[in-house]
Formats: sequence, structure tokens, C-alpha cells
Amino acid sequence: MIKAGIIGATGYAGAELARLLARHPKVEISGVVSKSYVGERFSSIYGNMFTILDRDCTGEDLAKLAQKVDVVFTATPQGFLSQCLTSAILEEARIIDLSADFRLSDVSVYEKWYKIKHGSPELLEEAVYGLCELYREDIRETRLVANPGCYTTCSILAAWPLVKNGLIDPKTLIFDAKSGTSGAGRGAKTANLFCEVNENIKAYGVATHRHTPEIEQELSIAAGEEIRINFTPHLVPMNRGILITAYATCQEGISAEDIRAAYEKCYGEEYFIRLLPEDVCPETKWVEGSNFVDIGFCLDERTGRVILMSALDNLVKGAAGQAVQNMNLMFGFDEKEGLDGVPFFP
Amino acid sequence: MIKAGIIGATGYAGAELARLLARHPKVEISGVVSKSYVGERFSSIYGNMFTILDRDCTGEDLAKLAQKVDVVFTATPQGFLSQCLTSAILEEARIIDLSADFRLSDVSVYEKWYKIKHGSPELLEEAVYGLCELYREDIRETRLVANPGCYTTCSILAAWPLVKNGLIDPKTLIFDAKSGTSGAGRGAKTANLFCEVNENIKAYGVATHRHTPEIEQELSIAAGEEIRINFTPHLVPMNRGILITAYATCQEGISAEDIRAAYEKCYGEEYFIRLLPEDVCPETKWVEGSNFVDIGFCLDERTGRVILMSALDNLVKGAAGQAVQNMNLMFGFDEKEGLDGVPFFP
Amino acid sequence: MIKAGIIGATGYAGAELARLLARHPKVEISGVVSKSYVGERFSSIYGNMFTILDRDCTGEDLAKLAQKVDVVFTATPQGFLSQCLTSAILEEARIIDLSADFRLSDVSVYEKWYKIKHGSPELLEEAVYGLCELYREDIRETRLVANPGCYTTCSILAAWPLVKNGLIDPKTLIFDAKSGTSGAGRGAKTANLFCEVNENIKAYGVATHRHTPEIEQELSIAAGEEIRINFTPHLVPMNRGILITAYATCQEGISAEDIRAAYEKCYGEEYFIRLLPEDVCPETKWVEGSNFVDIGFCLDERTGRVILMSALDNLVKGAAGQAVQNMNLMFGFDEKEGLDGVPFFP
Amino acid sequence: MIKAGIIGATGYAGAELARLLARHPKVEISGVVSKSYVGERFSSIYGNMFTILDRDCTGEDLAKLAQKVDVVFTATPQGFLSQCLTSAILEEARIIDLSADFRLSDVSVYEKWYKIKHGSPELLEEAVYGLCELYREDIRETRLVANPGCYTTCSILAAWPLVKNGLIDPKTLIFDAKSGTSGAGRGAKTANLFCEVNENIKAYGVATHRHTPEIEQELSIAAGEEIRINFTPHLVPMNRGILITAYATCQEGISAEDIRAAYEKCYGEEYFIRLLPEDVCPETKWVEGSNFVDIGFCLDERTGRVILMSALDNLVKGAAGQAVQNMNLMFGFDEKEGLDGVPFFP
Repeated sequence: MIKAGIIGATGYAGAELARLLARHPKVEISGVVSKSYVGERFSSIYGNMFTILDRDCTGEDLAKLAQKVDVVFTATPQGFLSQCLTSAILEEARIIDLSADFRLSDVSVYEKWYKIKHGSPELLEEAVYGLCELYREDIRETRLVANPGCYTTCSILAAWPLVKNGLIDPKTLIFDAKSGTSGAGRGAKTANLFCEVNENIKAYGVATHRHTPEIEQELSIAAGEEIRINFTPHLVPMNRGILITAYATCQEGISAEDIRAAYEKCYGEEYFIRLLPEDVCPETKWVEGSNFVDIGFCLDERTGRVILMSALDNLVKGAAGQAVQNMNLMFGFDEKEGLDGVPFFP
Repeated sequence: MIKAGIIGATGYAGAELARLLARHPKVEISGVVSKSYVGERFSSIYGNMFTILDRDCTGEDLAKLAQKVDVVFTATPQGFLSQCLTSAILEEARIIDLSADFRLSDVSVYEKWYKIKHGSPELLEEAVYGLCELYREDIRETRLVANPGCYTTCSILAAWPLVKNGLIDPKTLIFDAKSGTSGAGRGAKTANLFCEVNENIKAYGVATHRHTPEIEQELSIAAGEEIRINFTPHLVPMNRGILITAYATCQEGISAEDIRAAYEKCYGEEYFIRLLPEDVCPETKWVEGSNFVDIGFCLDERTGRVILMSALDNLVKGAAGQAVQNMNLMFGFDEKEGLDGVPFFP
Repeated sequence: MIKAGIIGATGYAGAELARLLARHPKVEISGVVSKSYVGERFSSIYGNMFTILDRDCTGEDLAKLAQKVDVVFTATPQGFLSQCLTSAILEEARIIDLSADFRLSDVSVYEKWYKIKHGSPELLEEAVYGLCELYREDIRETRLVANPGCYTTCSILAAWPLVKNGLIDPKTLIFDAKSGTSGAGRGAKTANLFCEVNENIKAYGVATHRHTPEIEQELSIAAGEEIRINFTPHLVPMNRGILITAYATCQEGISAEDIRAAYEKCYGEEYFIRLLPEDVCPETKWVEGSNFVDIGFCLDERTGRVILMSALDNLVKGAAGQAVQNMNLMFGFDEKEGLDGVPFFP
Repeated sequence: MIKAGIIGATGYAGAELARLLARHPKVEISGVVSKSYVGERFSSIYGNMFTILDRDCTGEDLAKLAQKVDVVFTATPQGFLSQCLTSAILEEARIIDLSADFRLSDVSVYEKWYKIKHGSPELLEEAVYGLCELYREDIRETRLVANPGCYTTCSILAAWPLVKNGLIDPKTLIFDAKSGTSGAGRGAKTANLFCEVNENIKAYGVATHRHTPEIEQELSIAAGEEIRINFTPHLVPMNRGILITAYATCQEGISAEDIRAAYEKCYGEEYFIRLLPEDVCPETKWVEGSNFVDIGFCLDERTGRVILMSALDNLVKGAAGQAVQNMNLMFGFDEKEGLDGVPFFP
């Protein structure tokens, strides 16, 4: 039994962590930090947790919380962790950061896209990018995990095997992404009101969304050369779920069998990645509430392009679930522990 | 480890049973029967179950299935079970029926409201009405459970303590119910199309809905006299959830404390019933995906009426979850086994 | 051609006024006031109005605006108008107030329910309650219309003929109301975020909602005695629409024909009230975008109660549409002018 | 005043035609044909039309209806019109066909993609592709309009100016489309049930959707060479609206100003096409219920691609509204007649 603390517990990702950890057989929630709700009962904000997590929110700082627990999850705004993290803190507790602060290995890329000065660039090297299926072994050893973004997890996992195996021209990659509204967070903004989102769809952050360099960083590693991609997110009137539809030109002579074989080679043993049968398109509803990523594809022989499709729950595999998966790896638990929720339908 | 079969597994309630049983530590799913999908892979219909329940649907009849399993869940149309159930079958396997066939103890009431001839009235006496919190001891002993309706579970649990303790005039009870659309089933009807339900709310079955006599039966027992109530269901554009708003005139001199005390006396020890703090109104989202029933109330001193509010997930506590709770009781398992899902938010 | 100004133009009701007035053949929009968006283009906030209403929002005060226009619509917070309205202003322009400031004839009732001191009680007597179908003649003559609330319009119109004609016991009236989320306004509150409202239903303001005394005021007039009612609003995951389900005990011997006759007597000539055929329940979608109120009912002979159902679009007949209808009456236009929009389906 | 008939009036596109024509000042609806509802009152199926269109549906055939009216709209399944249309019928009434039967000028392309034998290829040459902004003059003269598909209208209008003016490499065009569910029609299919669509997004018809050749036909004309594109539709949990996000590689040296200039040259005078201000992304909600198409774009200098975005209401500009616009052209009415509905928000 380890002790866990959550900073930023009253955002949607933080609350999802609370939901998952409350049923994790090897974890006890020992601290629930929320600047906005200090002294309030967690379940008075998230009524679903009534009788399940009857703790008050506190305003503890990271250093203090780290002394009391084995692992701290930071579901905090960009820039928070890099400002307060120190090597001394990492000796107290391991950190799993759901923000972007330690995802980009090149600090100048971080500062350019986030327009924030990075507060602890000296710790960047220690951080492991927590995409479990790609960096499992490094994650087991590290004290600091940079939990990937929701869009990036879904995008990278869809494209990685094809880029890695040279089946597509990586410079032609275009990611058209659709996300449920919980991805926009729980901040009280007019643009996220029910009446503004419902019965509506729009693109946003076109050519400027900050998950772009994160996708490029990882796929450049896979490609063995630096690549640039297009990434366009859209806001969909649903609570949860991300669907990626990606397009790329295939290398000459590539068949559907080649593509399937590449996926199977990379993910054949992965519990949380489900390669769908031929001609089945992923649906976000089929993964809702679970840590699964569903992947399907279609080779269009008319145009020589392959269309990749991947779906996940942005709050689970796209945030809190992957964070728990990282924790499981870091503490030597079964990787699926606490993550066996069956997707929820309808 | 017991073996379970589901008849009607591809309806929404049947599929929810599959979802819950797939993670029940003491149950193995040994038969998945669906007349409409014989020979098809269950997970090709319910993609959420891909890699989780990889069985084909069969067309087995009840008698045959009962020989192979310990418990059969029938999530079947009204009239199915009463036509094919026999005492011999009950010697083979216990039955938990999610239809209405064995809920009404008076066969003439059944035949009047359902306009179906009951096929096995001789078995009615043996059936136990499976509202676990009210009939726990009888359920443990029986071979045949009539799993209550979704609206009725939510309505009866809200009113029972007040009727039982004489705090309200039971003849003034009015139940105004709101349900998510999964309650309407998975049949391909125009009225249940997305575009017909979305951005819309309407009442239906006004003064004629068949859950009415079921509520009356149980509350008449609580009242010790025969009562008639009004029940009006509404269709709400959401997948899951039932909210009951009930109205009744209080007996002279009743206070909010009296009402709270009555609830606490009846439900103080009940895990699945959450009596909300004062002034908190239940929300269906706070129970989604779980077996909880949340209850709140408000005493209106201006009019002398009390407004009762209760919420549950129609597919869980309103159907499959309560069925599993009944199974747990019947087989001596912990009543919460397989039902510890935390409600899902957002 | 008259000139109209809107104060509070960037709330949902104000914007709906802009939408309706932009196509009204006898009105020119001459002022669009919004404290929060002074100097911003109206269509940069409401993109639907791009190329249709290309004006900037101003911060003009009421007195100044009144000098430039023939009619001012105030879609402002409670208390605003009563603080700044004077008899002198009413000599400049007629006022149609969408707030509650002049709806309650008894200032003490207003101050008790709204917890605001009324700023101009001397003008209350002049104000006409703008429920067009009930007070048409008075509206034609007045300078100040108190446009009714959304819930109240829907509730009063459903019950009025039965109360007026003594068909029901008015003291048994219970109004269970369901509203789309635009009724909660465009304020950036966490409770109105997409993820909090979607897939959810809850009651709110139970026994305390401020439309209660407004309903009581009008139905007391109809009853000829003071009555108190229960009113419970619910928040529904849809943009527009109000559905009222009301319950009352019928007087001895009343038949469905009596009820229909009462509706026909009161509303037989009314264009905007549609009395539905027998056994048809109103649906909010059938009136969406229009100024119609649809009414249906069901007499439950088992319990002696009648169930009344009425539906309207809260932003049209429940707010901006009725305001335009009032304007049409006040300026001698055809009552339907600018209000002939066909309800929108799906 | 002309007389209009609608065949297929009880589908969503047919009903939208009824909604628009009911308020068209120069048209009288003289026939409402629906095979499935012969003898039923139209407003008993579409309650929104109660008191507005009180006609019964008939089962008249095209030839007979054509004798009674000036224009027939066919909102019928693919293959219907090509089987029953004759030159003699076209002498009786003009036809505006909302199906695909006369959209593709090459009959072999039609037969390949639709897998239907074309019943009247000899009439194909006479048919004009009814994309009003591109073929206005031809439409005025013709007896037979092939009303474009919803996706195609939105896709072609977004790309046409850039292809026509050689600003992009047309072979790199990829259209990622998102549609509301009314596009799937009113057929009672499980896949279109509320619970299957709500809280879900998925791609469908990947690389095989039948609007693909229609887009290719028109953009090949613009390009002056034959091009092939990728088109991927997605089903979005909303009633109405199509959003196209299209990607293409710009020709060397093209600037955002060049792109804007091309749009302005093509559409500067077009009432129904709204070119949005810089950095504004179209939202489907901003055009809902109207005949507008909103267009925006973003040039991504990092990748050399332009991202085009366009939005329309699939039932209006994507179907019934454009059909009325075609009718207005054919009969010499003002092109906007009956189409001045302001988009509907929220």
C-alpha cells in the first residue's frame, strides 16, 4: 500500500485520478490539494465521490505533500511544476506530472510554444516521457514522469508503427483530431458553457495547438529525422473521448497487410491497445471510461494514402489512467492494477 | 466461481449485465443468448467488449441454458419468461428476471396493465420482488427473483420510509419521473432516433405507464392500505439516469428532522443508498455507472408538501446492477461484489 | 418603421431579441447596449449575426437611449430597471422589461423573493403584466410592460382556463418544470459548463424559485382567491425549451370534454396557443424557435387528477418573442409581425 | 404564386422543404407525397407543422403530381427519380432532385459508386448541377436541377477559389468532414438511435463515401485536370450542421492575402457565402437554420499547407435551402426569397 497525493484535484483530470485511485487496491489517497477549494469537502464539489472520498481539500505545497506520500500527481496548470520542483523533492516522492512542463526535451521548444519560462530545465533530462507502451523500461526506473497529452497519446500511438517501419512518408502526416469537452477543463469560461458547445462543432488552435511539438518530438524519434506535421483539434459536443483521423501518403507498394503487420509487431502484446478487425472504425464510445486505445485504418488505393483512426478516453488513457499506468510501472505493480474498468456503453 | 447465462444479452440491460459480470470475481459468463444475433460475436455488436467478452451469441432456449449454468438472467420482453418457465427449470438454475413477468403478485393486475396472458401464474408465489434493500432475507432463499423496474426502484426507495412511518398522506403521492433514453431499449424505432430525442423533452405514457401498479403494490404494503398514485415519465436527451421528483402532503406537524430520521432509520446501514446532505439535490450524473441511489428532499412549509428527489442509473441499480446485487444475495457473496464501480464524472 | 434599443443585448434573451428584430419588417435596431462588450462588434460575440447586425455594442444609459428610440427592451439583471426608470424616461420611449422588476404588483412580495429593494415602486401601478393572451387590451395602452418569466408564461397558460372555470381545486396545483440550459443565461458559471449539464438532470431552487410568486399572483386572480402552488424547476441537457407538467385534483364530475371546452373558450382564437389533439403530449422540439405554446392534457380517472402539459421555447414565447408580441400590440402592428417563424425540426 | 409538390416529404430533407416553403411568399404547397404515411396528416408526423401545414400525405406518382404543380422537389432514395423521370414529365413541371441521380455527369461513375443502374441516362445532359453560386445562369434556364449533396456543397465551396486560381496543389486535397445526425436520415436504424450516437464520434464510409466522386467532378472542372481527393465523413452527436476541415499544400510563395483575394474574387458578391474575418474559425452553430455557408482558413507556414474550414446547415444550404434557392433562380424570384432566416443561437 503506497500513499498518493494529488495536486490540482478538483480539475477534471485530478478528479478522474481520485476516481481511479479510490478503487486501486495498492494505493491510499493521502492528500487532495486544490487551491480553489481549500477546506471544502471533495465530495461537495464532485458529488459522485460522496461516501467514497470523504476528505477535505487542502492547500499544501508540493514540498510538504511530498514528505507525506510516496507519489504525487500534479494535475496543474502549465508552468506550475517547473517553478516548484527540486531535486530534493524528488528524493521524497516520485512525481507524475500531467502538465506539459517536462514533456518537451528541448527547453526552447517548450518556451516558444507555451510562452512560459521553464523553471527547472536542469531536471528535464531526468524526466521520462510517460507513454507507457513506448518507454516502459525507462518509466520503471525514473523519479519523474511527464505524462503525455491526451491528443498526443492518441496521435503518436496511431502513427508510431508506420513511421518506425518506414511504411509512410512521415512528412505527409496530417492529424485531424476531435475531442470531447472535458479536455477544455473545468474553468468557468463562456466558450465552454453548455449552450455554446452543444449542437456545435468547430476547429480551434489551428496550426498553433501546443500538442503539435509533442507529436513532432516523438514521431521524429520514430522517423529518425526531424518531421513537421499538421494537427487540427476540434471541439465536439460530448463529455469524453478523443478521435484522431490521420492521413499519410504510403511508400510505394505498401499493402494493408504490411500496415497490420507493423501494428501487430509493435502492439501485439499490449493489453491497452486494441487493434480493431478490418473495416471496423474506432468509436470513442467503445473506450469510454477505460484505459484502452482502439486503432483502425483504411488504405485508399485510389489516392495512395492511408487513413489512420484511433480513439481513447481523454481523461483515462489521455490523462489520469495513463498516469496510474505509469505509477504501476514505477512501483512494480501489475500494469493493469486499478485500470480494469470495462468501457461503458451506452 | 459460479456460471451465469444471459438471455436477451444484446439489449441495453443485457449488455450491461455482461459488462458487470465480466469483472465479477466470482462469476463466469457461460452463455450469451440473443435471438437477433445468433452466431455473431458479442463484441461485434458491443464494441466496448472487444477483447473482454469474446463469445458468440447463441439461440439456446431457457431449459437448455439452465442445465449448464447456476443462474440465468432474463433480460427479455414482457411475457417471454412466464411462457417458458417451469418448476423443473428452477431446479436446474436460479432465475433473475429483468422483465415484469413476476413483479406483480396479483395476476389480474399484470394482465390488465400488460395486456398479456400470464403463462405460469402458479410460480408467482415463489417469486420474490428483488428490491434488495426491502426484501434482502427473502431474496437469499428464493430460486426466482423478479428484478424491479427502473422507475419503480427509484420511486419506491424515495417514498418508502415516509409512507412506512406515516409522515405523509400516501394518497397525495405524485411521481414525476425523468429518464435517459437507454430506458427505451435498443429497438430500432423512429421515436428513439438521435434527432427525435436530442434537444427535446416530452412526457409519455401519461396515466398509463406500466410501472404504476408496481409502485402502488409496494407502497400499499408500506402504507398498510391500498393506495393509488400518479406517475408520469419523461424522456430526457441523455443516455443514462433516472430522476424522480415526488410530491406529497405531509401529515400535520411533520418536520424536516422527522423526515431525515425516517430515512436514516430505514437506510442508515445501506451502502447503495446515499442520503444527501441537507439542501443538496440529487443529480443523475453523480450516480452514473454505479449501483447507488441518491436521495434528497425539501419540505415546503408554505404548502405543507414535501418534495422527494431520487436518482439512479437506470441500467445499473435500475436493472443490471440490482440483478447482480440479487445474485450476490442468492449465492451468499458479499452484496457489493462486482458492484464497486465509482460513479463516473463528467 | 420604429426604432428599437436593447439593453443587455449580449445575454441570450437580448441576442434573441436582436435575431427577431433584425427581420421585423417594421423595426430598425438603433441601439445595442452591453456593459460587458462596449466597443465590440455584436457579431464578433454572436457569430450567427455576422453580416446581419453589424453594429458595435455601446454602454449608453437608459435615459439617453430612450431619447433616440421608440421602444427600449431591457434584458437586464433583476433590480437594474427599477433603479433607473423614471416617469420622464417613459415619456421618451416605451419600455418592455424582460426582468422581474415590474411583474409583481405587491412590492413586498418582490422584495421578499428577490431580496432586492425596489427602486421605483411608484411606477408599479402603471406596469402591465405582458402575458399577451390574458392582458391584450391593457398592453395596447401602456408605456411599461413587465414581460413575464419563461416558466411562468408556460405554467400560467396551461392552468388558467381550468382555474378560471373552476374545473380544478387550485390549491392542489403542482408544477413540475423542465428547462433547457439557455434559461440559465450566458454567465460563465461552473454549474453551466457543458460537462456539468450534459448527460445530467437535476432539480434546483426547490420550493424557493422566484417564478413561484409570479405564478401564484396570476392564478390567484383567475381563482378569485389567494392560492399557493408548488413549483419545481429542473435543468435539462438541451439548449432551448420549457416543458411544464402540472398536476391538480379535478372538481367532482369534471370530464375531459369539460377541460377541452375550457381551453377552447379561452384560447380558441389564439394563434400562438396550439391546443393539441387528444392523447398528444407536447414536445419542446415542436415549438423550438417559434412563439408557439403547445398544450395537452390527460385526465386520470383512477386518481381524479388532471395532468396538464405545456411547451414553449424559453427564449421566444418565454422571453424575446413575447416581448416582440408585446411591442406589436403597443405599436398597433399585427400581433404576429416578425413572429411567423416555423418551429424548427430536427 | 407557383405550386410546389414534394415527393419524400416525411424524410428530414423533405420536411425541411415543407418548413421553408410554408413561409415562402411566392409558393403554395400543393402536394405532400410520402409512401410510408399515405393518408396521414403531415403534422401528425412533424408536430412542429401543426396548424401550419394541415395536409394529408398522399401516394401520388411523379407523373400525376407534375400535372398539378409547377415544380416538384424529389427528396427520394437514390435511383427513384432516374427510374421514373421522362422528358414528358419535364414538360409538365420543373424538377429539383435532392437525390444523387443527376449529379454525376458520367453515368459509369454513378453506377460504380452507387451500385444502381441509372434509369434515364439520356436526361443527364439536360440536368444542371445546382450549386447556385457556381452555375447560377445555367440553373435559371433548366428544367432539371441536380441539387448537390450536403458534404459536397460544403467541400466544393471551400476549395473552389483556391483550385480555380491555382493557389494549391489540388492533388494534395484532403477533406475531413463532420456532420450532424440528421444527415443520416429518418430511417429507423439501430446505428442512428440516440444512445448509439450520443456521447460518441466515429468516422464512417472511409475512402468509399459516395460524395467523393461528386467533389472530384467539380474540383476537376476547377482544376482543369482530373484530380482525386480523400474524403472522410464523421458522425457528430448533434442534429444539424456540417463542418469541413480541408488540407492542401500551397503552391510556392502563396500568402494568406492571395488566398483571401481568391475567395473575395469568387464570392465577394455572394449573399449566402460569408468569408469570416481573419483567425475566426467557422462554427456550425453560427449557420444553423440558415442558408449561409461560413468559410475561414489558416495558412500554416511551418508545413506549407493551408487549412480550409467551411460550415453549413446540412438540411438548409446542404439540402432544402439550396433547393429553394434553385427554385428561386428557375422561376425568376429574388434568390433570397423565403431564405432570409437568421441563424439560430443557441
